[in-house]
Amino acid sequence: MVTIDDILSAQERIAPFIRHTPVMPATQMRDAVGLEGRVTLKLELVQVAGSFKARGAMNRLQTLPPEKLRHGLVTASGGNHGLAIARTAHVAGVQAKIFLPSNVAPDKVAKLKVWNASVEIVGSVWDEANEAALAFADGSGATYVHPFSDPVVVAGQGTLGLEILDDMPDVDTLLVAIGGGGLIAGLSTAVKARRPQAKVIGIEPVGSPTLRACLDAQRLVTLNNVSTQVPTMACRRTDEAIFQTVSRHVDDIVLVTDDEMQAAARWLWFEFGIAADLSGAASVAALRTGRISRSADDHVCALICGAGTDGMA
Amino acid sequence: MVTIDDILSAQERIAPFIRHTPVMPATQMRDAVGLEGRVTLKLELVQVAGSFKARGAMNRLQTLPPEKLRHGLVTASGGNHGLAIARTAHVAGVQAKIFLPSNVAPDKVAKLKVWNASVEIVGSVWDEANEAALAFADGSGATYVHPFSDPVVVAGQGTLGLEILDDMPDVDTLLVAIGGGGLIAGLSTAVKARRPQAKVIGIEPVGSPTLRACLDAQRLVTLNNVSTQVPTMACRRTDEAIFQTVSRHVDDIVLVTDDEMQAAARWLWFEFGIAADLSGAASVAALRTGRISRSADDHVCALICGAGTDGMA
Repeated sequence: MVTIDDILSAQERIAPFIRHTPVMPATQMRDAVGLEGRVTLKLELVQVAGSFKARGAMNRLQTLPPEKLRHGLVTASGGNHGLAIARTAHVAGVQAKIFLPSNVAPDKVAKLKVWNASVEIVGSVWDEANEAALAFADGSGATYVHPFSDPVVVAGQGTLGLEILDDMPDVDTLLVAIGGGGLIAGLSTAVKARRPQAKVIGIEPVGSPTLRACLDAQRLVTLNNVSTQVPTMACRRTDEAIFQTVSRHVDDIVLVTDDEMQAAARWLWFEFGIAADLSGAASVAALRTGRISRSADDHVCALICGAGTDGMA
Repeated sequence: MVTIDDILSAQERIAPFIRHTPVMPATQMRDAVGLEGRVTLKLELVQVAGSFKARGAMNRLQTLPPEKLRHGLVTASGGNHGLAIARTAHVAGVQAKIFLPSNVAPDKVAKLKVWNASVEIVGSVWDEANEAALAFADGSGATYVHPFSDPVVVAGQGTLGLEILDDMPDVDTLLVAIGGGGLIAGLSTAVKARRPQAKVIGIEPVGSPTLRACLDAQRLVTLNNVSTQVPTMACRRTDEAIFQTVSRHVDDIVLVTDDEMQAAARWLWFEFGIAADLSGAASVAALRTGRISRSADDHVCALICGAGTDGMA
């Protein structure tokens, strides 16, 4: 499993290639229901390539032997990891091939093209796009980078936990969207090593309770059915290391509906002019629907983890 | 003319009602041409109601006698001042009537409705909408709040200058979009009082050089023709006090085309996930097109003054 030392090494390795993103207190809202008290927004959506995924992707690149880069990078993604890999390949000067499910947000495909990635839409869920990506890697010799089932990627995402503790040394609760679980595994490892009294709460779609189902069953499970239409949060199965890490370090996982995330994205756009994608709005959706239990003076970090146009839809 | 004391009073008066907005260094760009060196983005687009206009509007409200509020507030706006007045009226618990020209951005009309403002589209430029707003004020008894020709509003906008100096004590150059000139008049007054060696540079559309034309003529002039399609930066004539202030405190005014602002808005969306409107992108447009002369180690503040969907278009 990933350790705090892995995350500290990642932080040093990737610092020259990523942004320290800003935070802002959530104040002056027209409709503050659920966000009363001390809530701070971590604006990770202004990270390079539009999400926290730049962290893990860059940690992966920095630890790949140069000969592994010759035939480029390939991955399958709901959108954000693909953008991060495309940007990482651009930094390395190699080609990126990105497989995406059909419900990927069009604005992300447009950005992938600006990064000069080769884009292919395959299947209706990530798992199908991923089969195509693995087949492409086999045939082409391109290096496949898994979006979450890779401890080097998880350690990179974990740097966001350290950064939030720098930004908010007194944070009591961190709200973190979950797709495959790579971010929350890395982030919770960092937070529990440095500020064990802080709570880390995961947010999953009702239609893809990947880790909630594992915690309930107390073992790694595969979902029979993934019905969420949020492409960055649809995942049939995480991996054993992430499940073990989440079991140990994550205090709770709450579920929100796609419509609640949609409403939260609209709210972020109206209240803050923040253009979040649906996973970026998940933490706010959990707050607004009253799913997070907290004391009146708790300092809550709502992580806005990815950019998108969903709030304008 | 507005003084630093007016701006300090405004700052104290409005602090409970506005946000201190975040800054971020412009780093990790794919295309950094024109933004090499030390450029910091001031993210005023995440201000309440979507722009710096909340500052001036709130300073106006706090200095109005209560009996002036009875029949509500009215204004004419390219969009952002209207949103700020709508929000200010919401805080005061009174009705807002907002007149807008036909090229107002649809996302701003949608937000005005969430603020429960009564919206009317009149004419193709601000001046025509403004005639309707003045007539409505006469007939209804609603209090008209001018977007720039009001020293109380100008003092409110000036608080943004003080805030930038707090955020970036070593700033050398501030880049500020101009519509009617209220923001740059207040901001430059604050900056020159506190850090006289810092340069303040205004940005106007080629199709609405309101203050550039005044500086060139060395007197207040009325533009014969306003051809920009940027509704928040279209203005036929400023006022004498703003012209005098800008003459004294603004170091230069440079012009950018509508297309250059459009490209800059797209760039902000691609590079930073920032959803700026065209005036919000004007400072970046001036940098990207090489119109700002600066030394290699100058610390430049590019003010992103308003939110919008223009970068996704």
